[in-house]
Amino acid sequence: MKILAINSNMNRAITDKIRDVARGLASPGTTVDAVCAEWGVPAIEGSYDAAFAALATVELVKRHERDYDAFIVVCYSDPGLYAARELTNKPVYGIAQSSMLAACTFGHRFSILSPLDRFRPVLESLVRFYGLEALCASVRTVNMDVRQSFDDLKAANTAFALEARRAVEEDGAEVICLGGAVFAGRDRAIGEEAGGVVCIDGLSAALKQAEAYHALGYTSSKVGLFETPRAKVRTLPGGVEI
Amino acid sequence: MKILAINSNMNRAITDKIRDVARGLASPGTTVDAVCAEWGVPAIEGSYDAAFAALATVELVKRHERDYDAFIVVCYSDPGLYAARELTNKPVYGIAQSSMLAACTFGHRFSILSPLDRFRPVLESLVRFYGLEALCASVRTVNMDVRQSFDDLKAANTAFALEARRAVEEDGAEVICLGGAVFAGRDRAIGEEAGGVVCIDGLSAALKQAEAYHALGYTSSKVGLFETPRAKVRTLPGGVEI
Amino acid sequence: MKILAINSNMNRAITDKIRDVARGLASPGTTVDAVCAEWGVPAIEGSYDAAFAALATVELVKRHERDYDAFIVVCYSDPGLYAARELTNKPVYGIAQSSMLAACTFGHRFSILSPLDRFRPVLESLVRFYGLEALCASVRTVNMDVRQSFDDLKAANTAFALEARRAVEEDGAEVICLGGAVFAGRDRAIGEEAGGVVCIDGLSAALKQAEAYHALGYTSSKVGLFETPRAKVRTLPGGVEI
Amino acid sequence: MKILAINSNMNRAITDKIRDVARGLASPGTTVDAVCAEWGVPAIEGSYDAAFAALATVELVKRHERDYDAFIVVCYSDPGLYAARELTNKPVYGIAQSSMLAACTFGHRFSILSPLDRFRPVLESLVRFYGLEALCASVRTVNMDVRQSFDDLKAANTAFALEARRAVEEDGAEVICLGGAVFAGRDRAIGEEAGGVVCIDGLSAALKQAEAYHALGYTSSKVGLFETPRAKVRTLPGGVEI
Amino acid sequence: MKILAINSNMNRAITDKIRDVARGLASPGTTVDAVCAEWGVPAIEGSYDAAFAALATVELVKRHERDYDAFIVVCYSDPGLYAARELTNKPVYGIAQSSMLAACTFGHRFSILSPLDRFRPVLESLVRFYGLEALCASVRTVNMDVRQSFDDLKAANTAFALEARRAVEEDGAEVICLGGAVFAGRDRAIGEEAGGVVCIDGLSAALKQAEAYHALGYTSSKVGLFETPRAKVRTLPGGVEI
Amino acid sequence: MKILAINSNMNRAITDKIRDVARGLASPGTTVDAVCAEWGVPAIEGSYDAAFAALATVELVKRHERDYDAFIVVCYSDPGLYAARELTNKPVYGIAQSSMLAACTFGHRFSILSPLDRFRPVLESLVRFYGLEALCASVRTVNMDVRQSFDDLKAANTAFALEARRAVEEDGAEVICLGGAVFAGRDRAIGEEAGGVVCIDGLSAALKQAEAYHALGYTSSKVGLFETPRAKVRTLPGGVEI
Repeated sequence: MKILAINSNMNRAITDKIRDVARGLASPGTTVDAVCAEWGVPAIEGSYDAAFAALATVELVKRHERDYDAFIVVCYSDPGLYAARELTNKPVYGIAQSSMLAACTFGHRFSILSPLDRFRPVLESLVRFYGLEALCASVRTVNMDVRQSFDDLKAANTAFALEARRAVEEDGAEVICLGGAVFAGRDRAIGEEAGGVVCIDGLSAALKQAEAYHALGYTSSKVGLFETPRAKVRTLPGGVEI
Repeated sequence: MKILAINSNMNRAITDKIRDVARGLASPGTTVDAVCAEWGVPAIEGSYDAAFAALATVELVKRHERDYDAFIVVCYSDPGLYAARELTNKPVYGIAQSSMLAACTFGHRFSILSPLDRFRPVLESLVRFYGLEALCASVRTVNMDVRQSFDDLKAANTAFALEARRAVEEDGAEVICLGGAVFAGRDRAIGEEAGGVVCIDGLSAALKQAEAYHALGYTSSKVGLFETPRAKVRTLPGGVEI
Repeated sequence: MKILAINSNMNRAITDKIRDVARGLASPGTTVDAVCAEWGVPAIEGSYDAAFAALATVELVKRHERDYDAFIVVCYSDPGLYAARELTNKPVYGIAQSSMLAACTFGHRFSILSPLDRFRPVLESLVRFYGLEALCASVRTVNMDVRQSFDDLKAANTAFALEARRAVEEDGAEVICLGGAVFAGRDRAIGEEAGGVVCIDGLSAALKQAEAYHALGYTSSKVGLFETPRAKVRTLPGGVEI
Repeated sequence: MKILAINSNMNRAITDKIRDVARGLASPGTTVDAVCAEWGVPAIEGSYDAAFAALATVELVKRHERDYDAFIVVCYSDPGLYAARELTNKPVYGIAQSSMLAACTFGHRFSILSPLDRFRPVLESLVRFYGLEALCASVRTVNMDVRQSFDDLKAANTAFALEARRAVEEDGAEVICLGGAVFAGRDRAIGEEAGGVVCIDGLSAALKQAEAYHALGYTSSKVGLFETPRAKVRTLPGGVEI
Repeated sequence: MKILAINSNMNRAITDKIRDVARGLASPGTTVDAVCAEWGVPAIEGSYDAAFAALATVELVKRHERDYDAFIVVCYSDPGLYAARELTNKPVYGIAQSSMLAACTFGHRFSILSPLDRFRPVLESLVRFYGLEALCASVRTVNMDVRQSFDDLKAANTAFALEARRAVEEDGAEVICLGGAVFAGRDRAIGEEAGGVVCIDGLSAALKQAEAYHALGYTSSKVGLFETPRAKVRTLPGGVEI
Repeated sequence: MKILAINSNMNRAITDKIRDVARGLASPGTTVDAVCAEWGVPAIEGSYDAAFAALATVELVKRHERDYDAFIVVCYSDPGLYAARELTNKPVYGIAQSSMLAACTFGHRFSILSPLDRFRPVLESLVRFYGLEALCASVRTVNMDVRQSFDDLKAANTAFALEARRAVEEDGAEVICLGGAVFAGRDRAIGEEAGGVVCIDGLSAALKQAEAYHALGYTSSKVGLFETPRAKVRTLPGGVEI
């Protein structure tokens, strides 16, 4: 199968990292490509940024729709996820939702870690939007920005490991979702540094779910929320039709 | 005070209607302008359309930010509402949220009517996102598209009045939210045709709330979800910086 | 329009304050009167006091029903609010509910402050009764009684400002509802003292909502919970018919 | 032990029935008296009536506080229940809450039946207030008034039995709460007519709970919601101090 | 009436204690016997242990079904409770559920105390399973095992009293459920040591509820969740039919 | 990897079917074995049957713990799932939970179909236990027993396809979970017969999730609910130690 990982921001270094991690985890027979947004924002740090990222993501899904069997939105607020699910009959995964659903299998309640403080209410809203609030022990942040947590891996891992332990000890979390594309492939390292806590990486979870459900032929329902959009003229700024 | 009503789609006729209704309701001393999206979609009929509308809306808020005291997003899924609240220190209203909050004052539970069948799950998700699911009796639709409901006012009114009665009798609704910009100013007519059911028009509710809270100096909190976005380069397609 | 603010307790000084604040905020064309309970309790500090206050409030609504266009119950547990909504076809506002609904527009989650410790479970129950528990971050109190917080304004403001900050920092609140009639008109001062937190005063919110929805002709639904009471003989103690 | 059953309305015939049923069920050693409201309303049919009934009930609890070991508020919206729990250190039961808590033991979800249509939203609100909404399958009514259901026992039983079956078959109810003082002692008859559905009578449940918990010395917590009211002058209309 | 208390674990000393406490509380005319599991586990400390205890409990209910009027499962995770309710037409009580439902009468929110830390998530799940999460302030534990808390009564009482106060002061609990069969009959002592907090013992609550509802003829609904199991061959290990 | 599928009942024919379906879906490198309960019940039709099945399942997990990398409990009430997760460090999947979590990816709300009417409340309770009630549109049944639905495949498929359509049209379901081991491998056929509804088979979902998460090294958290049981003597009936 062919999977396209879409980094919803414009950061090429993170996109390269995403590609490497995903290819490293892909089963034989799975091809993974990774692209990043061609316009929009260098990092997604709230709803305003997400408004750009959502449309940039959806545009990429539309452009590549025929060439892939599944899409992964690789940004931990899943920008454009539901729009993309409408647009294509192929399954579309978001790393936030995928990590939360994986977490539900491995523990009674999960916590989400995010680098950026201001992402706490964003992610609390997202958990609620997905209907999983009874299963979420807390959202915790470590006051780093996305850039920092990518540039100084060691410090970010340690900060996350520490916060993971707090989530376990103070909030009753049993599983940790690593909230950010920059944490792709770091689940094991952070889990170990946290003393054996189960940590879920959204990209890893989404990639393996994509393979798993592809084998079963499962895809987005086309009745209800993800019904195919009606044909109509849609334009981007500058009047480009899409 | 000066209010800008932003029609998130590109339909000029509806925009004109919005302007007329809003000006008709404005208190002395309130100026209302109305603009519509300059790109995006002619009508918003799901999450895919909303991805365009959200960014087009936000762009308009940004462009006009200094010139108005409050903004109203006039599309009954509130596209871009939270992004806009981040962007500006001025209050931003969404006709869906405004109608629901008004409804909470006048009855125990409200139902939302929408022309388009496929909007039902969209609005159910929105109610949940706003944390109001305990207060929402149902979302009902009448299988018309937005265009139809605007072109054939009489038929649309009748269809809505009928569905309003059903919501009251079958779902336990006590108040009806008219879910759509095309219903601007039709609350009284539909309520009467429904035999006296209290109907809330989102544009009317948003406009009067904007005036009311302006008088008190209330605006979006800048701690938490609506914190001001960080400065960074953001681009639209074609590379235009914004 | 003509609005009657009903102080559900018998404290004339607070009633005078309510009248002053309300008149100061009223739009041109709005007349506000304020009365207080003629029997019952000097301050409402729990469900027992509220049982007196509710009936005293309802009696006043009944007596003045024809003379006003809207009523505001000015006590932060909204005693008699639903009874009054049954009784009259005019809209009736409660400062607690009005403040909470206003708060929902300006932030993701609100906290309520109350002077009296024992009001915490009362207000938690009220939030639940209104179906808004997903939106309420916390109820916090400062261990003053109502009298104290009125007599020593400066101390009360400071205590509230401090607690507002704690609600923001520890509970994730983004907006603060000032829980008490004695805080009428103090929203700006407390918000500033708290370093810019958005504070909502229930009386202000209710008054402006009353004007806003009056302009639209909205009033309590008469199907369901607020259906007009049946005609029957009802008596007060001593056998007075009402 | 000595129990006082307080009929919150002024209907003496129902009060006599309550006394008879309660005495018939009382264990050896239990004395039951029954009184009815001395002012207020002949029947409680909504929040307006309940405002009278609550204070009339509380006044009776206060007057008889020293003479009984437990009190039962016998009206299926539990008017004044929380106020009475504040007032006295003795346990106070409400037939609505007692019936719901009993129902939780005998089935997965309960439905409440009430004679009067307009009681449906009142009871839905009450279920929510008690935090039991996950356990309540539905509230159903049969369009009789309280008087009718008392005067024509046979018709009322049959209407209730029919509605009980519907609650089981259509709503997934497993246990039925008979919502009204007039159904005191009719649980077995209605259950049988409904083909063996478990029906709970609130008065019976409250009475036996009162005996059960009296034996254990359990009573209302005096920290939090039911904390003893502060000493203060409280007056009834006419200025009578209480 | 005849009641059988079933200790779901194999500890005879605790069983003797259960018998003594229950007989001490039984009304005249009530006979109580107590048995313990004949196989399974010496103490129930999680879901694995509960899998043994549930079947061992159910086997005992089946064996003694004809000889008793009601059964009490005496282990604070109610193992086998729902299975037993299916099996017999007689009422079956679980000390956890009985204590929670009793607690709902005496305060706004309850906390559960349990000796063993690892029981916290087990009991949180149970509260949720019973649909009572809105009423539960917290589950707290004191890091003792069941054995310890039975062997060193004084230390266990003190640890519980301390934790009860914390639940009241930090979590807003108003009533405490003593989570464990070993606390049978210790409710008053712990409550006093905690400075007057209302403490509920599950065995006491279940016993008195059993008497109370027996007098009314109430028993498990046989429509829905507790429907009588179909006849079929069921075997225990070794092939013994049951 | 090596997976053991455990049919919690004693039906060998269904076990053979499970083995065939699972092997047909397994990726290269995955070995699947299937065993059934050696004692207990021929079919699981409620909580009483589940008490047998849970322990029989757990016993099998214990016996085979060293020989497999993952376990799947193949009975649509997941008997013994949480006990098994405690017992082993290897991941354990339940077909009910796996199907629900898969469904969350493909639609806004899912419905569960089950052959047996009396399973409706059982599955409603399970959905609640898993914290997914906001995502579950309904549980529907078709009044067949498990045996029938296995023996007459064609009729069962048709009944399920019909009910799936009803769930979509009447309840707002977007995805259907096929609730029963007998439906292993029938997802595509039923989905097509239902006109293209996305149907999820729990065995298929669990198997592919097992492979997916095995590749990532994810397993049950050992802090909290699934903490390893303490060492102690545990016995089966007859005194066999386990």
